Amino acid sequence: MLQIRTDLAIEARELYKERNNIEVSGVEVEKEEKNDYTITRVKIVNEYGANQMGKPIGNYITIEVPALKKADQDLKDEISKVLAKELKALHKLDKSNKTLVVGLGNWNVTPDALGPKVVDKILVTRHYFEAYKKIEDETMANVSAISPGVMGLTGIETGEIIKGIVEKIKPDLVIAVDALASRKMERVSSTIQISDTGINPGSGVGNKRKGLNEEYLGIPVIAIGVPTVVDAATMVNDTIDMIIGEMKKQSKVGSNFYSMLEEMESEDKYQLIKEVLNPYMGNVMVTPKEVDDLIDDLSKVIANGLNISLHPGIDLKDVNRYLN
Amino acid sequence: MLQIRTDLAIEARELYKERNNIEVSGVEVEKEEKNDYTITRVKIVNEYGANQMGKPIGNYITIEVPALKKADQDLKDEISKVLAKELKALHKLDKSNKTLVVGLGNWNVTPDALGPKVVDKILVTRHYFEAYKKIEDETMANVSAISPGVMGLTGIETGEIIKGIVEKIKPDLVIAVDALASRKMERVSSTIQISDTGINPGSGVGNKRKGLNEEYLGIPVIAIGVPTVVDAATMVNDTIDMIIGEMKKQSKVGSNFYSMLEEMESEDKYQLIKEVLNPYMGNVMVTPKEVDDLIDDLSKVIANGLNISLHPGIDLKDVNRYLN
Amino acid sequence: MLQIRTDLAIEARELYKERNNIEVSGVEVEKEEKNDYTITRVKIVNEYGANQMGKPIGNYITIEVPALKKADQDLKDEISKVLAKELKALHKLDKSNKTLVVGLGNWNVTPDALGPKVVDKILVTRHYFEAYKKIEDETMANVSAISPGVMGLTGIETGEIIKGIVEKIKPDLVIAVDALASRKMERVSSTIQISDTGINPGSGVGNKRKGLNEEYLGIPVIAIGVPTVVDAATMVNDTIDMIIGEMKKQSKVGSNFYSMLEEMESEDKYQLIKEVLNPYMGNVMVTPKEVDDLIDDLSKVIANGLNISLHPGIDLKDVNRYLN
Amino acid sequence: MLQIRTDLAIEARELYKERNNIEVSGVEVEKEEKNDYTITRVKIVNEYGANQMGKPIGNYITIEVPALKKADQDLKDEISKVLAKELKALHKLDKSNKTLVVGLGNWNVTPDALGPKVVDKILVTRHYFEAYKKIEDETMANVSAISPGVMGLTGIETGEIIKGIVEKIKPDLVIAVDALASRKMERVSSTIQISDTGINPGSGVGNKRKGLNEEYLGIPVIAIGVPTVVDAATMVNDTIDMIIGEMKKQSKVGSNFYSMLEEMESEDKYQLIKEVLNPYMGNVMVTPKEVDDLIDDLSKVIANGLNISLHPGIDLKDVNRYLN
Repeated sequence: MLQIRTDLAIEARELYKERNNIEVSGVEVEKEEKNDYTITRVKIVNEYGANQMGKPIGNYITIEVPALKKADQDLKDEISKVLAKELKALHKLDKSNKTLVVGLGNWNVTPDALGPKVVDKILVTRHYFEAYKKIEDETMANVSAISPGVMGLTGIETGEIIKGIVEKIKPDLVIAVDALASRKMERVSSTIQISDTGINPGSGVGNKRKGLNEEYLGIPVIAIGVPTVVDAATMVNDTIDMIIGEMKKQSKVGSNFYSMLEEMESEDKYQLIKEVLNPYMGNVMVTPKEVDDLIDDLSKVIANGLNISLHPGIDLKDVNRYLN
Repeated sequence: MLQIRTDLAIEARELYKERNNIEVSGVEVEKEEKNDYTITRVKIVNEYGANQMGKPIGNYITIEVPALKKADQDLKDEISKVLAKELKALHKLDKSNKTLVVGLGNWNVTPDALGPKVVDKILVTRHYFEAYKKIEDETMANVSAISPGVMGLTGIETGEIIKGIVEKIKPDLVIAVDALASRKMERVSSTIQISDTGINPGSGVGNKRKGLNEEYLGIPVIAIGVPTVVDAATMVNDTIDMIIGEMKKQSKVGSNFYSMLEEMESEDKYQLIKEVLNPYMGNVMVTPKEVDDLIDDLSKVIANGLNISLHPGIDLKDVNRYLN
Repeated sequence: MLQIRTDLAIEARELYKERNNIEVSGVEVEKEEKNDYTITRVKIVNEYGANQMGKPIGNYITIEVPALKKADQDLKDEISKVLAKELKALHKLDKSNKTLVVGLGNWNVTPDALGPKVVDKILVTRHYFEAYKKIEDETMANVSAISPGVMGLTGIETGEIIKGIVEKIKPDLVIAVDALASRKMERVSSTIQISDTGINPGSGVGNKRKGLNEEYLGIPVIAIGVPTVVDAATMVNDTIDMIIGEMKKQSKVGSNFYSMLEEMESEDKYQLIKEVLNPYMGNVMVTPKEVDDLIDDLSKVIANGLNISLHPGIDLKDVNRYLN
Repeated sequence: MLQIRTDLAIEARELYKERNNIEVSGVEVEKEEKNDYTITRVKIVNEYGANQMGKPIGNYITIEVPALKKADQDLKDEISKVLAKELKALHKLDKSNKTLVVGLGNWNVTPDALGPKVVDKILVTRHYFEAYKKIEDETMANVSAISPGVMGLTGIETGEIIKGIVEKIKPDLVIAVDALASRKMERVSSTIQISDTGINPGSGVGNKRKGLNEEYLGIPVIAIGVPTVVDAATMVNDTIDMIIGEMKKQSKVGSNFYSMLEEMESEDKYQLIKEVLNPYMGNVMVTPKEVDDLIDDLSKVIANGLNISLHPGIDLKDVNRYLN
């Protein structure tokens, strides 16, 4: 069986259906359509589903907001609230929670800087609880946050860094925010995935060998991911498919082309592309031109969603007052 | 006849040879190989050559430095000196020259910020000449510099802005620095093109309708360009060719595939790719991950080359003392 | 008579009153107090007033928003609207207006980057009017924008650059946005001054010898300024005054101290401080730590104010849709 | 006895001498003058000296390079080598060393970003040693690096974060790089202090309550600090002293002024200034205008110094090849 490689559960499911023309068994899907966004809740319920999807058993909630790139403040605020709501549905959050927010990724590579930028906007309070020897508070919960950097900069696996910190400060929950790669350009910067399975070896962009998950850290880990790049191989792959589509439409193509099409359709093609691209794959990224602004906006939307869900007495207006 | 679309004269020539298996007539090429770099001097001598190359009559000097991305200071300094030497060969520069350096591109889009970053490092002196009513000086020549921004930010064609300034301050020479797109990833950030034809409608990345050239500005214009991105269509195109190459090697492919190959080989394929990519072409860029550092390094190399060629009494050591 | 040196008309007035304990004659002042902000309209009506104030005859409207640094989105939007309203009161703006917005200052020095950052967020349209040979439109007016950089980077006086461009593109109005220096830290990043006198030799931070004003450019110039730094001399000056205040309170001081106080009170003291600070004055700035975020927020508030006042059919929601 | 508050040992010593007109007993000072720089080695040998200096017993080496701000590459390289030499003199470094480099400070506040910027340029190798189960190597030593951020962003004391990581990855040595505050503007960005006492509660800019020192971490800690700001109170203080100096020269002042001078000379004055400045002290910084470039240059000089001292087989040329 072919391994499916994508950060987004909804894409894993799409790929499976494309190949097998059936739904993955062991996977439950629920869709909720709104005017400005769609929420898809994918639940992997057993090992069979996990294998088919190439993802661990658990919940994967995806919020797709096509207009997010050009959203006005109202829509941004609405998405922050949706994020907060889904987060609370996934994990009970109250004033007694001690949460560590982890911003994964490299702050020197714009499309990978989402996590660190979110962390910069998190309303951290743990130091006050420590200073005043407080256990809990009606307005604020105990929140800390860190951006550990990537293994290429630190020489240390992110998992080890976070585990070391977790053992020192003993939070109840880790929320890890990360930039992902999508297989479809239209999803870049317009899709948010929340999952209760943490971040697992191999998934995500960059070097995160030791998983940020409950198994390794010993506490629940929620992962929030947003695709900010398309990997080069994916892009070529999609384009070739588009070309073939075009050609079919224009019925420009002779019968022999269709047989060749059979030859190539399938994961083989994708693997071949990856192979030939490898020489420069490593250092190439495919990203929207306005990526700087997009990352700034997204990080605010996500940080606000976290701030209002983690702190019992904080709403969107307060956030702006407490922050900057 | 098919129009060749590339910013680099050496690539235009390559493409022509690929298609026609002969050298372009009306184009003279001279190559100089060194340990760390190669200089290719392409001279388009007549209208026929210009049409074939899709570039105006004139000189196009390309300095290729494969190791530039990982260069030590000595190599960077050497390239600055080579750039200065080639510049002086192309246009007589002495203490009486009044030069305006123009940094093209958008400083908010990292790979397009090369020009503005060079301008930031140019040793400008015009204001001293004005203040002290000086005509000339043994050490310094009269140099000014500007980064006008791109039409998408200004609503004004770059050509109009520069012409307005030229009419006010009356320089003898304009040197325009710009980020280019290459058709080959290996050329990105390792190739410098110097030309005495200026920048012409359609060439370069972004919006520069009214050419920055002698015809429009009324004074000589030297263009210095460095490829910092590969356009997406090019990348897909190259990949498909690599795939075909791979397949041939692995002789994985049936005869019918070769016939299809015939169908597609040629500019048609490239155009088709451009077409299908169009929906997201506009906002997508393919660029090295470490682009921020690369642009910083390149802008220093180029700015230093300009500073030592424009100012009669300045060498590389002085530059660092005068600047920052 | 002592020259008063400050960018803000309200400060010039304050200083005059401090010294002379009377209102400046030839200057009319009108104050409007709101919950979150105060608008002060200073009108210099004759030459006498102009001399006393060290500013040309004209209108100076100041919007003071103490809470701007921690403002929520609603307050920011309100201030954008107030700015738009005051702007229209100062200069008739309709769909037929052709406006050039000029962002003064150095984008490499954070507190001086306000102007360029505003320009980045201006909804420019002139290129569409040119492309479609349109004269006017119900939704959009003809707007262009440029950030010329500072003389230290260009070697050209900002006035010359703008005049060159104005002569080429022939706008009806220039709006110049600039970072100012305040004499009071509490005004930094919380005060907006709008004036119909443009920017005049000596005023503003940095090198703007040739005034950006109607006299030089031949069209009306509106200046929008926000203090983003306190000049070092001012800060020392204020501190010494505060110390003296403290001492008086604590009556710590002997009679001889008062006599010395007489010796120093007055502009002499300020000049002396400037003198002794000169060696490093040039390169020193006194600025809030979170200046990066402040400038980002302010530039949005001002750009939005300009966008809704210049374009007849655009409101705050549209702006976000059109931009990024 | 008055507590001396300064990050630099040489300044603590200066202040002591100013006040007491004698050298501090229990402190040994050795000075080495070169053309371009001066090395001052301050050794605090006993508790008495420690109390007088307000710093723990240990070695404090200061490299002062007045021309560093405008240094050419040769001087920068020389300083990197001097730094490496002094580092090795302070702590034995060989191929078997396992070092963790810690970049202290806030990457969002330019003058505080020195540490993180150094970390970005450190040649980290630990992950290779882990991947290949290597113990040691002739060229490279085992080096890791991290920028933990500041307590205001993380809610966690830097000491706790580092201790957690140290317990996980067990290095032999920690080198902490930090931005300092100087009492003299001329020292900003031109002075490097190396000390074997680590970073101790209260010292340094920002929140570092739990010391980064051997006592807390259980392994040796070397601190490398560069002043990048002058605190506002210091600046006012220096200015007042300069004014007094000026006045004395100009013998502008009556006898009563001298008596007042007596009144104020001493730490009282400094404390008073701090007090009156407090309201805005917190968010104000006094820093050179070109601070962005200065920090970039300094971080390279320091990172190179660390890279060549930590890795047995790496020289300055190699560094550039391995990095970016």
